[in-house]
Amino acid sequence: MRALVIHGPRDLRVEERDIPLLGPGDVEVRVRTGGICGSDLHYYKDGGFGSVRLRHPMILGHEVAGEVTAVGAGVTAVSPGDRVVVNPSLSCGTCRFCKAAQPNHCMDLRFYGSAMRLPHVDGAFREAIVCRSSQAVVIPPTFDLGRAAFAEPFAVALHAAARAGDLTGRTVLVIGVGPIGALCILAARYGGAREIIAIDRLAGPLRVARGIGADRALNTRAEPRALEPYAADKGSFDVVFEASGSTAAIATALPVVKPGGVVVLIGLGEEAPLPVTMLVSKEVSIRGSFRFHDEFALAARLIASGDVDVAPLLTRTIPLDDASRAFELAADREHAMKVQLAL
Amino acid sequence: MRALVIHGPRDLRVEERDIPLLGPGDVEVRVRTGGICGSDLHYYKDGGFGSVRLRHPMILGHEVAGEVTAVGAGVTAVSPGDRVVVNPSLSCGTCRFCKAAQPNHCMDLRFYGSAMRLPHVDGAFREAIVCRSSQAVVIPPTFDLGRAAFAEPFAVALHAAARAGDLTGRTVLVIGVGPIGALCILAARYGGAREIIAIDRLAGPLRVARGIGADRALNTRAEPRALEPYAADKGSFDVVFEASGSTAAIATALPVVKPGGVVVLIGLGEEAPLPVTMLVSKEVSIRGSFRFHDEFALAARLIASGDVDVAPLLTRTIPLDDASRAFELAADREHAMKVQLAL
Amino acid sequence: MRALVIHGPRDLRVEERDIPLLGPGDVEVRVRTGGICGSDLHYYKDGGFGSVRLRHPMILGHEVAGEVTAVGAGVTAVSPGDRVVVNPSLSCGTCRFCKAAQPNHCMDLRFYGSAMRLPHVDGAFREAIVCRSSQAVVIPPTFDLGRAAFAEPFAVALHAAARAGDLTGRTVLVIGVGPIGALCILAARYGGAREIIAIDRLAGPLRVARGIGADRALNTRAEPRALEPYAADKGSFDVVFEASGSTAAIATALPVVKPGGVVVLIGLGEEAPLPVTMLVSKEVSIRGSFRFHDEFALAARLIASGDVDVAPLLTRTIPLDDASRAFELAADREHAMKVQLAL
Amino acid sequence: MRALVIHGPRDLRVEERDIPLLGPGDVEVRVRTGGICGSDLHYYKDGGFGSVRLRHPMILGHEVAGEVTAVGAGVTAVSPGDRVVVNPSLSCGTCRFCKAAQPNHCMDLRFYGSAMRLPHVDGAFREAIVCRSSQAVVIPPTFDLGRAAFAEPFAVALHAAARAGDLTGRTVLVIGVGPIGALCILAARYGGAREIIAIDRLAGPLRVARGIGADRALNTRAEPRALEPYAADKGSFDVVFEASGSTAAIATALPVVKPGGVVVLIGLGEEAPLPVTMLVSKEVSIRGSFRFHDEFALAARLIASGDVDVAPLLTRTIPLDDASRAFELAADREHAMKVQLAL
Repeated sequence: MRALVIHGPRDLRVEERDIPLLGPGDVEVRVRTGGICGSDLHYYKDGGFGSVRLRHPMILGHEVAGEVTAVGAGVTAVSPGDRVVVNPSLSCGTCRFCKAAQPNHCMDLRFYGSAMRLPHVDGAFREAIVCRSSQAVVIPPTFDLGRAAFAEPFAVALHAAARAGDLTGRTVLVIGVGPIGALCILAARYGGAREIIAIDRLAGPLRVARGIGADRALNTRAEPRALEPYAADKGSFDVVFEASGSTAAIATALPVVKPGGVVVLIGLGEEAPLPVTMLVSKEVSIRGSFRFHDEFALAARLIASGDVDVAPLLTRTIPLDDASRAFELAADREHAMKVQLAL
Repeated sequence: MRALVIHGPRDLRVEERDIPLLGPGDVEVRVRTGGICGSDLHYYKDGGFGSVRLRHPMILGHEVAGEVTAVGAGVTAVSPGDRVVVNPSLSCGTCRFCKAAQPNHCMDLRFYGSAMRLPHVDGAFREAIVCRSSQAVVIPPTFDLGRAAFAEPFAVALHAAARAGDLTGRTVLVIGVGPIGALCILAARYGGAREIIAIDRLAGPLRVARGIGADRALNTRAEPRALEPYAADKGSFDVVFEASGSTAAIATALPVVKPGGVVVLIGLGEEAPLPVTMLVSKEVSIRGSFRFHDEFALAARLIASGDVDVAPLLTRTIPLDDASRAFELAADREHAMKVQLAL
Repeated sequence: MRALVIHGPRDLRVEERDIPLLGPGDVEVRVRTGGICGSDLHYYKDGGFGSVRLRHPMILGHEVAGEVTAVGAGVTAVSPGDRVVVNPSLSCGTCRFCKAAQPNHCMDLRFYGSAMRLPHVDGAFREAIVCRSSQAVVIPPTFDLGRAAFAEPFAVALHAAARAGDLTGRTVLVIGVGPIGALCILAARYGGAREIIAIDRLAGPLRVARGIGADRALNTRAEPRALEPYAADKGSFDVVFEASGSTAAIATALPVVKPGGVVVLIGLGEEAPLPVTMLVSKEVSIRGSFRFHDEFALAARLIASGDVDVAPLLTRTIPLDDASRAFELAADREHAMKVQLAL
Repeated sequence: MRALVIHGPRDLRVEERDIPLLGPGDVEVRVRTGGICGSDLHYYKDGGFGSVRLRHPMILGHEVAGEVTAVGAGVTAVSPGDRVVVNPSLSCGTCRFCKAAQPNHCMDLRFYGSAMRLPHVDGAFREAIVCRSSQAVVIPPTFDLGRAAFAEPFAVALHAAARAGDLTGRTVLVIGVGPIGALCILAARYGGAREIIAIDRLAGPLRVARGIGADRALNTRAEPRALEPYAADKGSFDVVFEASGSTAAIATALPVVKPGGVVVLIGLGEEAPLPVTMLVSKEVSIRGSFRFHDEFALAARLIASGDVDVAPLLTRTIPLDDASRAFELAADREHAMKVQLAL
């Protein structure tokens, strides 16, 4: 089978690999589509991010959907022919974090297409993968696989929303309308937010934000003072989702969040300056949000039921053979939201 | 009556002032003792902190206890002769934060000895103050006023503990053993913490920490790597109280706090660098804690009942006429924990 | 002006009353429509409920909308000509519950059309009322007043949902599809519930439930064992809203709620048997929910924005002169959901 | 080895049994002392409780401490000679409740000396048991085994306290001062409760309550109206622990708990009448609390460190051969708090 292997910055190669053996409890999936994520782009552009660096070639990709082609002994919840989305995260089940229902902090986590471990864990941009049956979530037989493949990034947004607490009736600011920021808008809307403001520095993402239900979408490059009115009376937002990865985002968020409000950080990023006196005197909470847990199954279900419509986020689907073009487009935030590979 | 007025850095003067008029609902208190707080020291040493600057002479002080000398019309809860501690914080009761039970964020808060407003609000280092009856909390007739005057800073620590959530069975790190850090040790112990580690860069405060119940007190100047063992397995502390005001404290806390743990910031301070990737990937919460609310009454009660013993924190009581000497001693962290003025 | 006065069971009279004087901070509203609530029906059918009994004639009604006809001195947020819904609940603002942001437990609460106090507080089924400006929530100029008048009961449902905690992704059972149960379906849907099952003993309400988004609506009179499958594996529901007032409801809920799940009781009712061993061994929480707080403004906003559509719940609007017919229809649960009076 | 076997009501027999085989990961413990619990008494007096009935002879007991005599392959945390308390609860680790960090709701839980399953799970009133190494918690070499054996019931109380939420500064009522009620007093005190009132109908338990730190201990048989003052102004208690198992306890608790307060039910019991209108209008939460989870290790640690002193609760230790006398004494609430068997 063919797989998309990263060898270094801007060095993507389609290579032949063997299909892994199918063991008891396993499921073999013919992957049909895979979304390109921000971390994929980091490997593509920079060979990694922070201290996470490519040490050897690795198959990329962790947002995939496809059809089940075979199941191992003992598998009953999934059958050949089923359409599935695949949870790229496999926790050990026995460490203290797994026992404490924090599998995203598992001491031995295996996550597709990640160079955090050595040897790296290969990803899912390949024609076939073999996963544990618990990783395969069945979707309806005719449901569009491109939309289904949003389950993973939408799970990230739902987890961030869960970290924020009950959003019913809350006013929400989303900083940065990349795919995760856009999905945070959908998650906040689904969770009952009363008003959602999005900011970005590019017009393209802001158009998408308006299209999926942001009450206002403000261009902070064109209007650097656009948020100033929201700083009146000690602030306007109950919750801020920071999805830009910008080091300036926290300093942007603190004046406009209400006393006692919450800023959820989703994007991994460089060291950022923290205005301590404002955080303390307004009693703001800054909460990290990392990947997801139960939210993967919920994301798959909400997308497959049509309760949440991710279709406006899909910019284009490009064949695997044109992977570099797909990655270049995905990196163009003005013109692309989510780009998927057809496998 | 005599009052302690700050005119500028290291310019303290004992001046004569009139006793304010006693209106309906008011209480007149003969102040007997007053603790010198970190913010008093900032005015004394630097003329303010951050953007808060002395614009005109101001009476200092907000940690005071004394005896009631007169009560205004309609006051029934307090009587002349009662010993009281005085809550230095007076909220308006009608703004949206007061209505939301967040009086520490009141839009029109009056806090003793604070230059945040203009004109500044005079403080309580004076022989007599007139306050609202709701500000005067009665303590037993023979209870030591010096210990009672700890109610205000202990309320700050109890509020920080409340911001951390239920501490029963938790492991706690206290960064910085000034008076607030030391009172956080007492608050965490009272709240059921299982294990409390304190760090400081001076031997004197660490001795106090051990004396009041810290399980371990580590000198991070003498042993810069003293916390390293606590970083194993993704971290050891459920809760960190940052009471040092050091810009390095957050970077110190993040490696040793558990995934999903909480870092409570109490000290106002400069901009500090925030290691975003670690905060996100460990899903840490950083929460500001500002002053207090209901905790003032609780603090007074726990001290007066003997349930919490603050006596080991009182370094010395110095007459008002020696105020400058008292402030110099209070600023010497190696040799002084809390210094009080006798009025 | 004309007002609808209850003198005793089934003794409704339209009587002439004076329009109250308009004081500073007051708003005079020409009431146009008013929904008949369960408590109105209790007064109509039984002269009260539990220990709350009519001791003298009282104007009924507390779910009303209309147009502002005059405002008192100092009122700026509301103007003559505005369409408004009127919050029937007026708390004192100074008792310990008001200060603790629990105004629904105010020691001196005045609630329209309630016989809890003596003398009773007159209600709003009259051509004109004078309320405090804080009670009048402005809606868009052309918004339908009938739908707007659902703000009050929808606030009850939103408060119940808030009592349940974050509903995102939760499975929910609603017991009893009267107006409050139906509005709980809308509130749970708005708050992100993943699956909502409703039960009732009548076909009419269940049809409404299906029409407003219940995933399943089960007739427990026709199929007494309809919930049995949900009891498998220790239960299926994260949250149960009990809105039937039936004494059997708790015993119905406990087998089908998950361990650690929540049962929110909304309906005032007789003493009910509580299966203690099941509650304890499943660690269920039973939480009372009483009226509302901030949810009134949220309810008005969600209805007026169209985010929540209450129109399917309005069975009929009947002129004030036919009030008895309106009340009889409102009492017929098979054929009526919400009946409103035109004033 | 000898074991205490219950054959039916008041039919206790000391019988010879084989020591189970020691497998990998197992620990063999020479049991030295075992506390008699309320459920042991139910089997002794009635042959069971509720629907849980003895179907065949069963070894009783689940509050035991002793010395390790052997460890199986792979065990490193525990060594022969160690003193240990034994967690009587063994969860499967793989069911959905175990994965959700709710092992006390495990679908396949094995709990010592419980007739909930068929065949029943034998208990620990025997000279030797073999348990999983994760069940054995090491205590200091010289620590008194009788006090250590309180770890299990104290874990029940700590879990109930955790269910109540943060107790710092709260006012607490404990209904019923049997061993669990008494341990709730200790847990509430440890967790920072401000004031603790205990009620019972017998003088003996109330004396113990006073001795371990209850601020007041009231005899509600002698003074049936003793709680009336606490019902003023809508109630006085933030939290009520119901540990009496009496069906009247909830009706006792509701008038005296504050609006928004919490009643934690610990005792399994018959169906009890629930005053729905009071629960709803005061927005009380009733929460079941069942056994424990992480609290077992915490209980062992707090007892062994001396932070919590359970010694005043131990009435007498009686040799295994006098088991019936021990059970009769344990059943005499006036004269006995906790009775332990020496094995």
